[in-house]
Amino acid sequence: MTSPLIVDVPDSSDFSFHNIPFGVVSIENSSQPFPASAIGEFVINLRELAVAGLFDRPLLRDIAPSVFSATTLTLFLQLGRPSWREARQTIQTLLLKSHPSPLRDDPNFRSSVLIPIYSIQHHLPVRISNYTDFYASKEHATNVGAMFRGKDNALMPNWVHIPVGYHGRASSVVISGTPITRPSGLRLDPVTKAPVFGKCQKLDFELEMGFVVGVGNELGKPINIKNADDHIFGVVLLNDWSARDIQQFEYVPLGPFLGKNFGTSISPWIVTLDALEPFRVAQPTQEPTPAEYLQGGSKDAYDINLTVQLKASTTTTPQTISQSNLKYMYWTFNQQLAHHTVNGCNMQTGDLCGTGTISGPTPDSLGSLLEMTQNGTQPITVDAVSRTFIEDGDEVILRGWCESEESAGEKIRVGFGEVTGIIRPARS
Amino acid sequence: MTSPLIVDVPDSSDFSFHNIPFGVVSIENSSQPFPASAIGEFVINLRELAVAGLFDRPLLRDIAPSVFSATTLTLFLQLGRPSWREARQTIQTLLLKSHPSPLRDDPNFRSSVLIPIYSIQHHLPVRISNYTDFYASKEHATNVGAMFRGKDNALMPNWVHIPVGYHGRASSVVISGTPITRPSGLRLDPVTKAPVFGKCQKLDFELEMGFVVGVGNELGKPINIKNADDHIFGVVLLNDWSARDIQQFEYVPLGPFLGKNFGTSISPWIVTLDALEPFRVAQPTQEPTPAEYLQGGSKDAYDINLTVQLKASTTTTPQTISQSNLKYMYWTFNQQLAHHTVNGCNMQTGDLCGTGTISGPTPDSLGSLLEMTQNGTQPITVDAVSRTFIEDGDEVILRGWCESEESAGEKIRVGFGEVTGIIRPARS
Ligand SMILES: [Ca+2]
Ligand SMILES: [Ca+2]
Ligand SMILES: [Mg+2]
Ligand SMILES: [Mg+2]
Ligand code: NI
Repeated sequence: MTSPLIVDVPDSSDFSFHNIPFGVVSIENSSQPFPASAIGEFVINLRELAVAGLFDRPLLRDIAPSVFSATTLTLFLQLGRPSWREARQTIQTLLLKSHPSPLRDDPNFRSSVLIPIYSIQHHLPVRISNYTDFYASKEHATNVGAMFRGKDNALMPNWVHIPVGYHGRASSVVISGTPITRPSGLRLDPVTKAPVFGKCQKLDFELEMGFVVGVGNELGKPINIKNADDHIFGVVLLNDWSARDIQQFEYVPLGPFLGKNFGTSISPWIVTLDALEPFRVAQPTQEPTPAEYLQGGSKDAYDINLTVQLKASTTTTPQTISQSNLKYMYWTFNQQLAHHTVNGCNMQTGDLCGTGTISGPTPDSLGSLLEMTQNGTQPITVDAVSRTFIEDGDEVILRGWCESEESAGEKIRVGFGEVTGIIRPARS
Repeated sequence: MTSPLIVDVPDSSDFSFHNIPFGVVSIENSSQPFPASAIGEFVINLRELAVAGLFDRPLLRDIAPSVFSATTLTLFLQLGRPSWREARQTIQTLLLKSHPSPLRDDPNFRSSVLIPIYSIQHHLPVRISNYTDFYASKEHATNVGAMFRGKDNALMPNWVHIPVGYHGRASSVVISGTPITRPSGLRLDPVTKAPVFGKCQKLDFELEMGFVVGVGNELGKPINIKNADDHIFGVVLLNDWSARDIQQFEYVPLGPFLGKNFGTSISPWIVTLDALEPFRVAQPTQEPTPAEYLQGGSKDAYDINLTVQLKASTTTTPQTISQSNLKYMYWTFNQQLAHHTVNGCNMQTGDLCGTGTISGPTPDSLGSLLEMTQNGTQPITVDAVSRTFIEDGDEVILRGWCESEESAGEKIRVGFGEVTGIIRPARS
């Protein structure tokens, strides 16, 4: 079938016509970042489209040039879901061969808008004012709880009643590709059991996703779960790097701190809820029935395939070490948002909420080395080398994508690209 | 003695010639907030001073008009301690009768700069990007620990080794005077012990101070404790409103969340470390000796008197219910900052770090109702009414000030003003 689009999009591309994610990029050796989307092997310069007047539908017509001339997506996110939807639809239309436009017809303009994705660099798409991390996978919470408190006390009594979460550090959220320096801190010496200062010996990743808040709420006015979808702009991949030994020593009674706040990596493209709509599925059965403020729709989960690859420092090929799926998550995004605000806490545009580690029900679907290696006691083998935790020079790559069954000759793929990070040695 | 100043400053004023705090205010019915200082009963419009060219010393001469035309102090804070010090000294000089300037000599200019403090409203002085709350008072940690885990397990083993802290919610930090809505959430029913949804029954305050970061650090590069003073711009009063019943249900294992993030109030004026320098005192003896990265100077504590007043909804006069002092705090600001960054975590201009509740060693120096009433079991009496926790319409007022002994006929007072908040009924 001839492509109906003005650019070729490989079937395997995460950035299909159905996706149209949003991010912020810059061209190498040029300082000013700009809002962008992606299609196939190209990024789409939204600033150029806007300045040329191509956002010509009612909501964005007058404001697109200023909204998309900003260096973050913050102004765009503040507009709300009807505008997000209109922007996505406008971009889709402009990509159609059947739609006459300077993008289709003017080669010079086209080359200023469609830029090969290999030639750009990514930036944080929004200023992240607040970052929260939930703990919403029952499998993960059970696995970790069993390790530290025994099988019978694995889940805390509160866990089945509320999406447990905590505040993370917003300043150290970084874009995919940013190297992470191995942290140092106090931890218990495994032999003497005394606290000693030194570099982290149990550096781990956590396979997570995160939703980005589009429209916030006023302090004191909760977001009703029925409206949660209108407040969430979209979703990214998230790697919550974790220093297990530092975390273990510090976390009682106030929770994780230095064990987490040295870096959290996110993927550069925010995939909108509209793009994810075809992949909504029923969430896991919740027993006991949650409180009324946590009762959302019946299909509030998303079927998103997730993989973890580890590229050991001594090898050249990443090896897949886990395959999970967001649909295993017990507490939905909507429940997380309703819970976060039920006490009146105010969300702001650009706030990031991580899901917590997404572990599945099987041994090959665990979302952290902590779980895979049973806290370092059972090494895994990666490309003929053995790992308990992450070593210097290792790279961790998380990927996520949705795929529908082929039907009527069409298979829809909407992907997140990847979030990667390589570990640098600790400072001496 | 005749005052050497161009304005009268009452002896009891927090905003003495020695203070020169920094904040952001606006004049009622005028929209644009501006940077300000305070002297006696007046605020000092720094934008007007700057535009008139009165910051005429080397560091600020060229940049003061743009720095002080901003609507927050963020640009000013980024400049670093030599500039903060120069600004304070310039303002002090301009207040001297002996120094000829338009402020002294031009009545019109003077009335545009010195504005009666009763006629202004306060704003958050900086955009707070990240808020951390420590737990640095040994008395408080011991009192609370004993209540929930018994006297023998009161302090967790990590507590004497590190300044335990956690990430708070930056978005809900509000300026003094902002009403706080009683939060609702899940808590355990005291009779059935089952989780129930409803409004908080154990609403509390926490008497804290907080330091505001002036100059941050790059991700991956810790702040050495010897340089911590140069990164801290100044100090405010902080009330960490706490919903004890919500907190109690949610906080294991990831720490406080909805029990805290519905509101945190700070005082409007940031008092600089330079103004606090005369009040430095030795911190409490630390046993065991902390790790090297936590070894600061010998006089890293500050002697700051603190009081808590409660104005019950049914009364007209605030009653003092606690008198404490920041010098009781075990872990110093410098230790908190060194700890926070030792793993490479990056601080940003405007970040706020709360001390945790500052309880003293005696029953009249407790920093929370949780401690004063033994978790609501022993009511206190305020102006002939009984209180276990805060009721709707109650107002909590925290105050702080430093005072030196009289010497050579002069007594120095440097105060923080107050942070107040009144509790509004829960949403129905
Ligand atoms: Ca996590
Ligand atoms: Ca606190
Ligand atoms: Mg992290
Ligand atoms: Mg609070
Ligand atoms: Ni002068």
